[in-house]
Amino acid sequence: MNSEDIRGFFASREQLDMADYLVLDYYIECVGDIETALAHFCSEQSTAQWRRVGHDDEDFRPKYAAKVISLTVEGELSALSYPVKHSESGPVHACRVTIAHPHCNFGPKLPNLLSAVCGEGAFFTPGVPVVKLLDIKFPESYLMAFDGPKFGIEGIRDLLHAYDRPIFFGVVKPNIGLSPEHFAEIAFQSWIGGLDIAKDDEMLADVDWSSLVDRSHALGEARAKAERQTGEPKVYLANITDEVDRLIELHDIAVRNGANALLVNALPVGLSAVRMLARHTKVPLIGHFPFIAAFSRMEKYGVHSRVMTKLQRLAGLDSIIMPGFGSRMMTPEEEVKENIEECLQDFGHIKRSLPVPGGSDSALTLETVYRKVGSVDFGFVPGRGIFGHPMGPRAGATSIRQAWEAIEQGASLESWAVGRPELQVMVDGANRKKQEDVKK
Amino acid sequence: MNSEDIRGFFASREQLDMADYLVLDYYIECVGDIETALAHFCSEQSTAQWRRVGHDDEDFRPKYAAKVISLTVEGELSALSYPVKHSESGPVHACRVTIAHPHCNFGPKLPNLLSAVCGEGAFFTPGVPVVKLLDIKFPESYLMAFDGPKFGIEGIRDLLHAYDRPIFFGVVKPNIGLSPEHFAEIAFQSWIGGLDIAKDDEMLADVDWSSLVDRSHALGEARAKAERQTGEPKVYLANITDEVDRLIELHDIAVRNGANALLVNALPVGLSAVRMLARHTKVPLIGHFPFIAAFSRMEKYGVHSRVMTKLQRLAGLDSIIMPGFGSRMMTPEEEVKENIEECLQDFGHIKRSLPVPGGSDSALTLETVYRKVGSVDFGFVPGRGIFGHPMGPRAGATSIRQAWEAIEQGASLESWAVGRPELQVMVDGANRKKQEDVKK
Repeated sequence: MNSEDIRGFFASREQLDMADYLVLDYYIECVGDIETALAHFCSEQSTAQWRRVGHDDEDFRPKYAAKVISLTVEGELSALSYPVKHSESGPVHACRVTIAHPHCNFGPKLPNLLSAVCGEGAFFTPGVPVVKLLDIKFPESYLMAFDGPKFGIEGIRDLLHAYDRPIFFGVVKPNIGLSPEHFAEIAFQSWIGGLDIAKDDEMLADVDWSSLVDRSHALGEARAKAERQTGEPKVYLANITDEVDRLIELHDIAVRNGANALLVNALPVGLSAVRMLARHTKVPLIGHFPFIAAFSRMEKYGVHSRVMTKLQRLAGLDSIIMPGFGSRMMTPEEEVKENIEECLQDFGHIKRSLPVPGGSDSALTLETVYRKVGSVDFGFVPGRGIFGHPMGPRAGATSIRQAWEAIEQGASLESWAVGRPELQVMVDGANRKKQEDVKK
Repeated sequence: MNSEDIRGFFASREQLDMADYLVLDYYIECVGDIETALAHFCSEQSTAQWRRVGHDDEDFRPKYAAKVISLTVEGELSALSYPVKHSESGPVHACRVTIAHPHCNFGPKLPNLLSAVCGEGAFFTPGVPVVKLLDIKFPESYLMAFDGPKFGIEGIRDLLHAYDRPIFFGVVKPNIGLSPEHFAEIAFQSWIGGLDIAKDDEMLADVDWSSLVDRSHALGEARAKAERQTGEPKVYLANITDEVDRLIELHDIAVRNGANALLVNALPVGLSAVRMLARHTKVPLIGHFPFIAAFSRMEKYGVHSRVMTKLQRLAGLDSIIMPGFGSRMMTPEEEVKENIEECLQDFGHIKRSLPVPGGSDSALTLETVYRKVGSVDFGFVPGRGIFGHPMGPRAGATSIRQAWEAIEQGASLESWAVGRPELQVMVDGANRKKQEDVKK
């Protein structure tokens, strides 16, 4: 490209009608001339050839080109942050670049949006071997084409009559191998112990040794019994993750049998399938995060998890389970907080999703998670912290509610545990582990 | 886990009925004790808690646990290859590990398979911060549940009456912004010039300024005219990438109007949607690769592109467009060859897919690509190499066919170009560029 060609891919916000554009933030490392690389970066993701041969006065760029609207050169690097085979030579620069991408190029469709912002264009631009898509901002005109969550946080709270506190989920364990009857008995115990939502593991769906028909039937009955016994609404969260052409059928089966919320692995089925399901669903739809780490863990490469949280909310998930706090989840604390914020912040007419930062939780971690989230608008989702509790799942669930009481009362966990054996056994276990670690 | 717990996640192939298992190859970097990390790696991706509390004689591992069946410690590293926040301490080892994963845990379903092999388990294991899924091997019993491509390479060749040579695709350019009428005229010219398949860009789908209804109608007519004029079958490859609940409808519209192959962006719509479409389709289904680089470019992290090629073939794509040769595509040559091999090698009863290694091709690169592929069983897919040709798209297509004639005749491109102006202008352009580069 010559310098005039390059100019067609740069603009200021003032020159554009921003209602026509998505705003994309990227971190890039570019090789050689920065402006040339950025013009290619825009050209490759929009109109790579902007006129027909022999039509010298034609120019598709004003309407269809992606355009750089802001650039910050963070500095020159001695080498790319990651080794990538590529063809350009010259100095390497780390840049933050903001691009206005015309949404008329693809319309309000999730697969086409993904193709535009993290497809061949963005990741195969000459001179731009290292790319991370950091954020997407949508004009109201684009958001209006999406329904978003049908229930949102308020809908989930109304379902459970649970206000002014977190929502207590639990992943029934053993996650793989239980018969529907054993599964139902364990879930029942956890509901009696105080759990709001007993859920299928993200790996447990419709399998021949625990079909969704049988499991949702057994769980529907167990839920009704738990509701009678406790006088409280309870939720069975059934995992209907499956081939996309079975999702609607599995929704109908599970809901008919008594599942009153549904889990779907959002990225494996695809965000578009989530949107389809959200349109159809009669109960809250909750997403789990398999696959997200494969493209979001590298600090400077891939797609930021915030983008996926935003798109999952846009697609209509009422609640989003995400990699949470604690070093087991290998996600920086700031990133977890950004993902929580993506669920809660204003987003046009789109309802708020309940964020569920997950990862090896128990009564012992509740206060930390609550303090980090900074509000009661979150879901808390232990697995083994409830279902591996030494006194069993009922006690496991009770220990979580006791830990919440301690927070409400402003008491320390240690003091609140006195006379509460379910919590005491968790506190004792933690103290024992501390002592063992000291001995090592 | 204690040493007995750990033992439950190791086995030899001889101890297992391998028909019950997928075989997964991972590169991992683990921190601390290797066997402990690997036991967690298996446990997290299968039965994380393998007995109910209070049932000490219960053990779900023999049937449901993923198990290490082979381990090669490649060496100790001074640090992880990529910085990842994590909780373990101890020596860091690079390992190649082979895992037998029981497919009864999820069944022959692509979203559930993806959740199992590159989900929370694989990527959030304590002590395993760096993971790359390298390959999946399937037992025949699992493959039997999949139909694979309906047409395959032979079906595409029969459609075009094109044997013993590559299939010549071209991405109509300008890719974004053309009216259906102008698009049809350009495609027509390229067919007359010798192209087999004129295709929509992966970024051009059903948009208001070029609806699929209008475009497929215009292209269907142009194709019929080109077939009459040349006496050869031609293909219009229409991009129906869209929300998954519109794919079947768009298939029907495009095919009714005269599109005789369909393009879909496989990862953005989801592999499961591809499988659904492959079951329905009346014409060959061709996949494009947006999003693949986000998780496959890092040498030691994410998911190898080979896995996605294999899964796309399994899902039923008759042809797979993939990042090809040349430094613009930033993909090591060996990786491109592996992806081509994945399309062509024996895969149970699953038909072969036509590999289309793409990236900035033209008459000038055909021989190189052909020699690297090592057979005529590939598609060649220039964009600007045809539609940016100085003499126009008809000449651009002709230049590709002339380049193939040169190969068939064993002639050099330079000598074959004499008296063939379409090829000559490409050769002249390349020579001019070489001289300019020398001057620099």
